Amino acid sequence: MSAVTNEEVRAAAERIAGHVLRTPVMEVSPGLWLKLELLQHSGSFKVRGAFNRMLSAGELPGSGVIAASGGNHGLAVAYAARALGVRAEIFVPEVTSPVKVAGLKALGADITQTGAIYSEAAEAAAKRGAETGALPVHAYDQAEVIAGQGTTGLELMEQIGEVDTVVAAVGGGGFAAGIAVGAVGPRIVAVEPERIPTLRAALQAGEPVPVEVSGVGADALGATKLGGLAFGILSGPRVESVLVTDEAIVDARRELWARYRVAAEYAGAAAYAAVLSGVLRPEVGERVVVVVCGSNTDPATLVTG
Amino acid sequence: MSAVTNEEVRAAAERIAGHVLRTPVMEVSPGLWLKLELLQHSGSFKVRGAFNRMLSAGELPGSGVIAASGGNHGLAVAYAARALGVRAEIFVPEVTSPVKVAGLKALGADITQTGAIYSEAAEAAAKRGAETGALPVHAYDQAEVIAGQGTTGLELMEQIGEVDTVVAAVGGGGFAAGIAVGAVGPRIVAVEPERIPTLRAALQAGEPVPVEVSGVGADALGATKLGGLAFGILSGPRVESVLVTDEAIVDARRELWARYRVAAEYAGAAAYAAVLSGVLRPEVGERVVVVVCGSNTDPATLVTG
Repeated sequence: MSAVTNEEVRAAAERIAGHVLRTPVMEVSPGLWLKLELLQHSGSFKVRGAFNRMLSAGELPGSGVIAASGGNHGLAVAYAARALGVRAEIFVPEVTSPVKVAGLKALGADITQTGAIYSEAAEAAAKRGAETGALPVHAYDQAEVIAGQGTTGLELMEQIGEVDTVVAAVGGGGFAAGIAVGAVGPRIVAVEPERIPTLRAALQAGEPVPVEVSGVGADALGATKLGGLAFGILSGPRVESVLVTDEAIVDARRELWARYRVAAEYAGAAAYAAVLSGVLRPEVGERVVVVVCGSNTDPATLVTG
Repeated sequence: MSAVTNEEVRAAAERIAGHVLRTPVMEVSPGLWLKLELLQHSGSFKVRGAFNRMLSAGELPGSGVIAASGGNHGLAVAYAARALGVRAEIFVPEVTSPVKVAGLKALGADITQTGAIYSEAAEAAAKRGAETGALPVHAYDQAEVIAGQGTTGLELMEQIGEVDTVVAAVGGGGFAAGIAVGAVGPRIVAVEPERIPTLRAALQAGEPVPVEVSGVGADALGATKLGGLAFGILSGPRVESVLVTDEAIVDARRELWARYRVAAEYAGAAAYAAVLSGVLRPEVGERVVVVVCGSNTDPATLVTG
């Protein structure tokens, strides 16, 4: 049995209602919907998990919340902390772009830039959190976070009704795992860039194992290995692992903009890449929902690729 | 009685179904919805009218269709013509943005760039159409075009149910007029840039009169006077005229991107500007739908304004 239940996702949905947007779905061709989760507050689904983690914790400590992330998760935690009136301390690696640091600052977060890569920043955050007593909000490997992300799956089922397949991107796996729990019934197609195959590697090894991280999806899908909780869910029978090339992701992102004015980041376009590239070929009559999950991108690059 | 009826809008909706997207709505705060018509094919609502005009005409002439447009209407006619397999000849004024001209070319239209402003391009197109026998598709002053645009209003009522107020931008007036006919019940707030007050001037004069055209909305809301059919509808009792500054439009466009990753063009943000600037102050409990109607913009400018 999964460590995260559908009841927990339903409870999360009630808990975070009013704090997050009910993002729209759009049928772009017969039987193919986009779930426009990139329109979500802070620009990605990550606020769902952040709010659920914080609102599940009871009274938050005076030292607030703490997280490590160079990107969407950090923005989401900072956004949710501001909304709830608590302090957010965000640890980001030194490689994090000034644009993202500026975004975090604009949300009022305290930022510590430390360590060459994410895992070093995460270690420093864990140490600091132990000292201050701040509530740690993990990017993917916490039950409340996964339940929060899963509200996306619950929501799209309510919006569309009958769904055969949900297509979602995988980094640390919290989003796809949450959707698999929240969307009861459909198969879950878990899409990864070929150059960051955390789920594929975990399925082959029988447990999460570190992978090399590179390519266009690295800033948002750049977990070095799948979360343990996510593995417990994504190794189940309803889930299918699919890989896409970086070229397919770049194409998909450009086409989302050109066709539908949907301004996705690369990672946010990975799921659509599986359909557009033909890696995933829906059958006639199959009802497919592609989740477009993030938009923290430089819009100047939407046309140029 | 209006020259365009709700029955005509309903017939248009059936006629164009499958050719246009049912664009989503998103509740961004309690009682405030965005109708994301900017995600529509060709990047604006204009395809609704273009398809309805062409599909109402029976067999289309071998010379195809002809239109004059500062951009969005041209893109829409070119898109619809390509979809229906006929030729499109588009006349655009010199003021047209390079993004829109490039878009027209990509859709395979024959383009003639002539005249300083829209009305001069429109004259040239009328002359040319009389020679070739191509079906003229007017940007706003044709009953089939207004009925097509009105399907936006019909659709948002179906999506949201009870609506008190619909906020929409006015250029030539075809869109707001169509919505007023298609959305039975709510008041219609017709928003214009202060620097292109075609409706306000018409209401004051008792008939459409020419106005000066300038400012950030000029490329998409740059009709020099309101359409006659639109005047017949928008001078009715359910419609309220509101003006917004260019500064409010620029702010609204930037905030649509920053808050919701909605990539509107300036004209597409005019309706939201009325709410954001406080020119329009919804009452407690009022259910307001703001139509974000166009996205043919250079995305590089979404952050810089």
